[in-house]
Amino acid sequence: MRGPDDEAALSALGHHLLVEFEGCEAAALADLERVTAAMLRAAEAAGATVVTHSFHHFSPHGVSGAVIIAESHLAIHTWPEHQFAAVDFFSCGGVDMDRGMLVLKQAFGAARETRLELERGPLGTIKS
Amino acid sequence: MRGPDDEAALSALGHHLLVEFEGCEAAALADLERVTAAMLRAAEAAGATVVTHSFHHFSPHGVSGAVIIAESHLAIHTWPEHQFAAVDFFSCGGVDMDRGMLVLKQAFGAARETRLELERGPLGTIKS
Repeated sequence: MRGPDDEAALSALGHHLLVEFEGCEAAALADLERVTAAMLRAAEAAGATVVTHSFHHFSPHGVSGAVIIAESHLAIHTWPEHQFAAVDFFSCGGVDMDRGMLVLKQAFGAARETRLELERGPLGTIKS
Repeated sequence: MRGPDDEAALSALGHHLLVEFEGCEAAALADLERVTAAMLRAAEAAGATVVTHSFHHFSPHGVSGAVIIAESHLAIHTWPEHQFAAVDFFSCGGVDMDRGMLVLKQAFGAARETRLELERGPLGTIKS
């Protein structure tokens, strides 16, 4: 059984940062190699340990994929036709997600970003 | 330039369902093969087209990974020591995320679930 102290400690097993990049360079978002490279640089900048990655072209435009890191994952979906990218960075600690997101913002030339930070855990779940 | 009609159409480029499963069977969450198989069955049940997948053991316990689907991705992180799993299903349409989540709930024997549905898109971003 878990006690009150355990419950407090459990409230944020995972940290989840969701970012929407708007006003990006369409060409950057449409290029599989550029998106892949930017995501790997972002993981590195965050201090994450890359386990593997998978990216693919998305029909009719855009790129979709994820970097699996030892600390969790970093996923992206791009809509070059809307100059838009949705990024998720899920971490169990020990990484600097802001640094990773800055790398992506610069790589895509994003004019604006909107972010939502969530805590993931078994108590008071999915609270921002 | 986008007009008002376009803006309405753009408001939900992606659908993102975040689920927290609590009270799961610890053994199911700790088993790399079982988690991988459950996630692939969930993607199949949702009607998604699997592109690739990657799962790995997480230190000191648990499993982490993602299924990249043609329609976006399905990611999981499990904490067997807390009988807890955090799942993300990101879709650009055409899949039944609820069916996929039901497969996972049953596979893990989850006693409870908490969910948050977000719309991802360039206007009115990250709104639930």
